[in-house]
Amino acid sequence: MRLRNKKWAQPWLENHADLVINQDRAVSLKGNWQSIFTKEQPLQIEIGTGKGQFIIGMAKKYPDINFIGMEIQEAAVAVAGRKADEYEDELPNLKFIYGDGAGVDTYFAKGEVSKLFLNFSDPWPKTRHESRRLTYKSFLKSYQAVLPVGGELEFKTDNRGLFEYSLYSFANFGIRFNPAGISLNLHEDEDKMIDNVETEYEHKFASQGYPIYKFVGSFN
Amino acid sequence: MRLRNKKWAQPWLENHADLVINQDRAVSLKGNWQSIFTKEQPLQIEIGTGKGQFIIGMAKKYPDINFIGMEIQEAAVAVAGRKADEYEDELPNLKFIYGDGAGVDTYFAKGEVSKLFLNFSDPWPKTRHESRRLTYKSFLKSYQAVLPVGGELEFKTDNRGLFEYSLYSFANFGIRFNPAGISLNLHEDEDKMIDNVETEYEHKFASQGYPIYKFVGSFN
Repeated sequence: MRLRNKKWAQPWLENHADLVINQDRAVSLKGNWQSIFTKEQPLQIEIGTGKGQFIIGMAKKYPDINFIGMEIQEAAVAVAGRKADEYEDELPNLKFIYGDGAGVDTYFAKGEVSKLFLNFSDPWPKTRHESRRLTYKSFLKSYQAVLPVGGELEFKTDNRGLFEYSLYSFANFGIRFNPAGISLNLHEDEDKMIDNVETEYEHKFASQGYPIYKFVGSFN
Repeated sequence: MRLRNKKWAQPWLENHADLVINQDRAVSLKGNWQSIFTKEQPLQIEIGTGKGQFIIGMAKKYPDINFIGMEIQEAAVAVAGRKADEYEDELPNLKFIYGDGAGVDTYFAKGEVSKLFLNFSDPWPKTRHESRRLTYKSFLKSYQAVLPVGGELEFKTDNRGLFEYSLYSFANFGIRFNPAGISLNLHEDEDKMIDNVETEYEHKFASQGYPIYKFVGSFN
């Protein structure tokens, strides 16, 4: 989803550069991300964090994990940042990067990220745009470059075509599929809903009765 | 689906032993299956052929391929055989094995089968019955033992749990996922429906609006 530009976004981001980190600083933090958090603890990132509902929910739920939400849209990352800022004292374990998800391995060192989330990524349905999908092999390679061996990728979407494509892409890349790691109708899987943290999209589509697809796998 | 026993089945099968081949003869034909068909041409098999709608439909549609439907239930294989027998002159490319799908590699030699179909297999939903599912790794190993390198497996089911499990099992076995080989709602994929041959179950469930799942992959 593309948000309209917001006039307040740019000045707000400049005033909150410690919460929402820009690309240049993100590159310089490669290998040293723990230095910006209060506690040294596992770091998990979401690529394409949108307005932040998922990553804020995760940060509240798991205080013993550090989280970073990456987002390329200025208006979205500003909305996410502002929402998180309301909880700032309670959420010392959450930061954002205003930057391009394609650059994940320019921002993070091998093994620096313990787990990676993709939620409701742009489906890019046309075949000629395959290489723009965040589950295309070149992206998978960049994820592998920042995760440890065995590091997990979690992926949710309501888009059937993207999920079908992504399973193909994951399998042929050599990602291990976790036992019980696939759900083709997440909101009907009681076991998997216990720990589920919703995104904005997910809430909307699931409540309209559309199936939500989920995948959990791990890199070699 | 388990059919009730049919009194006519056993004598009918004894009288049609060239159409519906029993296990002992099937074992003796290993490596020589082409000898029982009118023409030497690629051989494709369906494991768990039920009442035969799919394999009869395939045999009619593709006269340049030989087909074998395997079925362990006497009543079902007799119904399938009797149905096929009505077309016998037109279907010299179709035979059945009344036997256990677990034994596929006791019946066929490496590379003797060019493609393998699984349709609406028993889901065996309980975890302790995992090893009975026809997509469990020991079965996949037996399929690999009869297919050439690159030989395809096609799998359809309406059972979400079985499909989720099977994707996991296929990927971790090292089966290559075909590009566009997955459909999570086959009957809404116009491109894939052009060549679709329905099974009894499929017709019933799809017409009730349930999604039909399909996978196509290939063995190394």
